[in-house]
Amino acid sequence: MKLYWCPQSRSATALWLMEEAGLPYERELIDIRKGDQSTDAFRAINPMMKVPALVDGEAQVAEVAAICLYVADIAAGAGLAPALGDPLRGRYLQYVVFGAAGIEAAITQLYAKFDMPTVSAGWGSAERVCDVLDGELQKGDWILGERFSAADIVVGSGLHFAVKAFKMVPSRPSFDAYIARCEARPAWQRARAIEAAGG
Amino acid sequence: MKLYWCPQSRSATALWLMEEAGLPYERELIDIRKGDQSTDAFRAINPMMKVPALVDGEAQVAEVAAICLYVADIAAGAGLAPALGDPLRGRYLQYVVFGAAGIEAAITQLYAKFDMPTVSAGWGSAERVCDVLDGELQKGDWILGERFSAADIVVGSGLHFAVKAFKMVPSRPSFDAYIARCEARPAWQRARAIEAAGG
Repeated sequence: MKLYWCPQSRSATALWLMEEAGLPYERELIDIRKGDQSTDAFRAINPMMKVPALVDGEAQVAEVAAICLYVADIAAGAGLAPALGDPLRGRYLQYVVFGAAGIEAAITQLYAKFDMPTVSAGWGSAERVCDVLDGELQKGDWILGERFSAADIVVGSGLHFAVKAFKMVPSRPSFDAYIARCEARPAWQRARAIEAAGG
Repeated sequence: MKLYWCPQSRSATALWLMEEAGLPYERELIDIRKGDQSTDAFRAINPMMKVPALVDGEAQVAEVAAICLYVADIAAGAGLAPALGDPLRGRYLQYVVFGAAGIEAAITQLYAKFDMPTVSAGWGSAERVCDVLDGELQKGDWILGERFSAADIVVGSGLHFAVKAFKMVPSRPSFDAYIARCEARPAWQRARAIEAAGG
């Protein structure tokens, strides 16, 4: 597998994922500050011109949450996804999608400061997104309870970005403790070291 | 399985999915205009207080894209998802997520009329989302080419909402033809009839 990535981008989530998955992979730097994402070669991999993107033989996948779903299912030994038939599979898929769609939408709303009726907005409101995550994270160490999964990679990365790195979302005790648990994982630390080394 | 739904909501996507999947399911109306989504009973199913939501034995799942991923994998006979190991699985996951996160973000941007740098926005811009979908839909009848999948249920529902129902996104020939192909599917028509009958 080859991960196309760039430091200081949503690639950090995919790096953490790949380090959790434990499957061999290569990295190729797409320098988005130099326009590497606009080449024909990269647009054939992801027409959205966004990192991260992953190529696995003939398979291609972009969008962070989709990369998490893809890798978690093929890295069966890493236990990053409840298997088909496991009752937790439903909530797992829900929180991977929610981490991508809901948290991103909440961050966008806080950044762009627009109003939208909570009944119309798929994510309700930025406050509701935070309240729901707060409630879930008071029930257990991870978003599925006691079990770490790729949903934590998406949700943990989103909360780290929004709460700790950019302080767009006010800190809450459950968020701070959860982010600290994420940062304590060896795979998180390996991913940060790769990022700091620029490759 | 039981689908919690409400007419004139994102439930329409889940209704279409269930009709494509062909598995037996019940429906329970959650009247969001009367506040049914705020009861403790429904919040235990989806703390976001949003329809649709699905309960399958002990499994619970919300977020339209996650419901599509969940059902498409268990309804193996319906062929709504490339199986694990199929090279199309990557793009399939990508476009289910993109349909939820990217198209929703584009619609939100068009509704709320805010600017965000394309390098920061996960979806680039509303225009880029449309250009990418336009490009993909010029290559084949469905988002994966010749093969219909649950990604079309998410993307087709999103485009129908944005282009045809609410005219937020300017019509393009590829969009109009794709929406017409979606509307021609018997499962789409059954879903619309259920919605029109209010249950």
